Amino acid sequence: MSEPADGEALLAVPGIEVAAVAAGIRKPDRLDLTLLRLAPAATCAAVFTRNAFQAAPVVLARRHLQAGPPRALLINTGYANAGTGPEGAEVAATLCAAAGKALDVPAAAVLPFSTGVIGESLPTGPVLAALPGLVAALRPDGWARAAQAICTTDTRPKAISRRVRIGGYEATITGIAKGAGMIRPDMATMLAFIGTDLAIAPGPLAELLRETVDRSFNRITVDGDTSTNDAVCLVASGAGPALSPAAGDDWARFGEALQAVCLHLAQAIVRDGEGATRFVEIVVEDAADAREARAVADAIAHSPLVKTACFAGDPNWGRILAAVGRAGVEGLDISRVRLWLDEVVVVTGGGRDPAYREADGQRVCAQSAYTIRVALGRGTAAVAVWTCDLSYDYVRINADYRT
Amino acid sequence: MSEPADGEALLAVPGIEVAAVAAGIRKPDRLDLTLLRLAPAATCAAVFTRNAFQAAPVVLARRHLQAGPPRALLINTGYANAGTGPEGAEVAATLCAAAGKALDVPAAAVLPFSTGVIGESLPTGPVLAALPGLVAALRPDGWARAAQAICTTDTRPKAISRRVRIGGYEATITGIAKGAGMIRPDMATMLAFIGTDLAIAPGPLAELLRETVDRSFNRITVDGDTSTNDAVCLVASGAGPALSPAAGDDWARFGEALQAVCLHLAQAIVRDGEGATRFVEIVVEDAADAREARAVADAIAHSPLVKTACFAGDPNWGRILAAVGRAGVEGLDISRVRLWLDEVVVVTGGGRDPAYREADGQRVCAQSAYTIRVALGRGTAAVAVWTCDLSYDYVRINADYRT
Repeated sequence: MSEPADGEALLAVPGIEVAAVAAGIRKPDRLDLTLLRLAPAATCAAVFTRNAFQAAPVVLARRHLQAGPPRALLINTGYANAGTGPEGAEVAATLCAAAGKALDVPAAAVLPFSTGVIGESLPTGPVLAALPGLVAALRPDGWARAAQAICTTDTRPKAISRRVRIGGYEATITGIAKGAGMIRPDMATMLAFIGTDLAIAPGPLAELLRETVDRSFNRITVDGDTSTNDAVCLVASGAGPALSPAAGDDWARFGEALQAVCLHLAQAIVRDGEGATRFVEIVVEDAADAREARAVADAIAHSPLVKTACFAGDPNWGRILAAVGRAGVEGLDISRVRLWLDEVVVVTGGGRDPAYREADGQRVCAQSAYTIRVALGRGTAAVAVWTCDLSYDYVRINADYRT
Repeated sequence: MSEPADGEALLAVPGIEVAAVAAGIRKPDRLDLTLLRLAPAATCAAVFTRNAFQAAPVVLARRHLQAGPPRALLINTGYANAGTGPEGAEVAATLCAAAGKALDVPAAAVLPFSTGVIGESLPTGPVLAALPGLVAALRPDGWARAAQAICTTDTRPKAISRRVRIGGYEATITGIAKGAGMIRPDMATMLAFIGTDLAIAPGPLAELLRETVDRSFNRITVDGDTSTNDAVCLVASGAGPALSPAAGDDWARFGEALQAVCLHLAQAIVRDGEGATRFVEIVVEDAADAREARAVADAIAHSPLVKTACFAGDPNWGRILAAVGRAGVEGLDISRVRLWLDEVVVVTGGGRDPAYREADGQRVCAQSAYTIRVALGRGTAAVAVWTCDLSYDYVRINADYRT
């Protein structure tokens, strides 16, 4: 498998047609409405935000997903249709019904997704008016346009295609995502849509997506804020051959390719994090179990002090240790904790390593991407998460928004 | 009781003598070493940081506190003596021994406190050289000078005195604190010292301090980072009459006065939070229990999105709802959630109240201090916490530090 990269040509996925138009939902002349039409044999899995304040489209998409196999995904930007009460639920239902009618499928076969401002109504007028043109524009190679159309404050689209050989068949995976980190619940926030032409039963597809999201989208953080509208949706169009976990190696290879696609999209979101100037990988290892490894990694990744030090290019290991110390690890023996910046040993025995030179730490932290690695000395569990720094621009963007 | 205010004259506390000098620990000509001498009858209680990376003086102060009643508190700024390994433990022990000798008390009767840079050695030389002059400078009215001497990056000292009538006796409580929020573990961070002239047994004193800290210092947050050196220390000098919980009303009145002193010092820390431009009270009520009220209040208080909106004066209730939604409240019914900015009703039924006008929210959020109030509609538990906004200056201060 080649390394994924943005800008590579996106591959069409047999069994999935894509269109995007400028419907004028909130601003004129901006792609803001996207439709994916799925072949009748398609299966679909999705994971949604765990935030208790779930947007109306999230609630409805969950319900439609249980009702039967989806035939279309309808995605709008501009307004998130979140915090909009019963009226928002009606709006989402109206749009699904209209899209279903235009595509000649039941309303319940349409999954709605919205992203944009929270708490303001999503107007149905522009969407209803744009639907005929949207349907007419459906085509297999519409992915790149859709990647643009789902963006809100993103500075660039996020998209990737991979090929993976399954038996004698060259299968395709194409994914697009939007979100400038999980940093903006009111531009609510992270959406990803991934399609493959294989035929995969709903059960294994859902399980695979859950596992993969846990190792990709759920491992990124910009500021710990999660959104009301986050969703990742995986479609298997069924145009190609069937694949199941029983296929052994083929299933594993497909899982790896899917993981690579999701990881690329997830990391692209962090790299495009609002105000981000550095991409930081945080690895926690030698933990007693995965839960505590993750707790320590999150404490580091969410620490404003660590993140401002990253912005400054400051190898401020005291702040990292303090974050480790407040992660709630029961009985942590600080004399066993070690810390590296890339390959530079900084902390051993719970304090500064005698051989550590500040200049070496500064060299690492001056890079645009580096790794903070912490070993807890308690076991064998490990985790990696990805985050970015906290800059003036983060404050500017989030303080200026809505003004 | 009158409202507490900084700048009021600090009252001496019979049985406690205080001195502060410029020892040249890290910078010349700056008050950086403080000593409190306690009468032989004094009792003492203290609470310390729960961070697993506890500084050497914290570890030693805990041990000394268990060994018997303290006779002195020795406080230095400049270096936190944290992340300094076995050598740091030796430094703390050396300083306690020297202070004990100078005061003619056992080393174990000296409680050490340090604040300043993490991970660099605290030099003993300047402290040892300054001790004789420090002891000679001890006097009952040294509190105001001590309030200055314990500061690091604080823009102003934090101190308050209160009188409280216990039986026929006019008792005194004087407290000083340092810390510009819990935002800076490497200037590590929050210290508070409170003295009264009453005689209180160690058990009730410790319990009262714990309860009071839970309703004051533990309710403030600047960015959720906690320090390696945080400590709050309460001394009852025994110069005045005895007081115990059996005293009923008198005990309650003393508790109230102590709470007022601690709350004033705690809120003064938030008001002086690095880069803070606004002081925000967050009240969560109608919660099922205190734990979930606190979880929701903390989620709001720690949200960078809420805090940048506060900086901007933006009544961004969508961000507040999103923080409520991710606080982990099991089975939260969002249709019962209500939200106010001061007295302005913003959210009812889980969405924008029909009568809410953006201009009203803007008027509240333009103030230098206001209250965000959230009702969960689940029960009767409530909590208040205090925080500040997240500004450009927060990033500047924490990114520039150590450069």
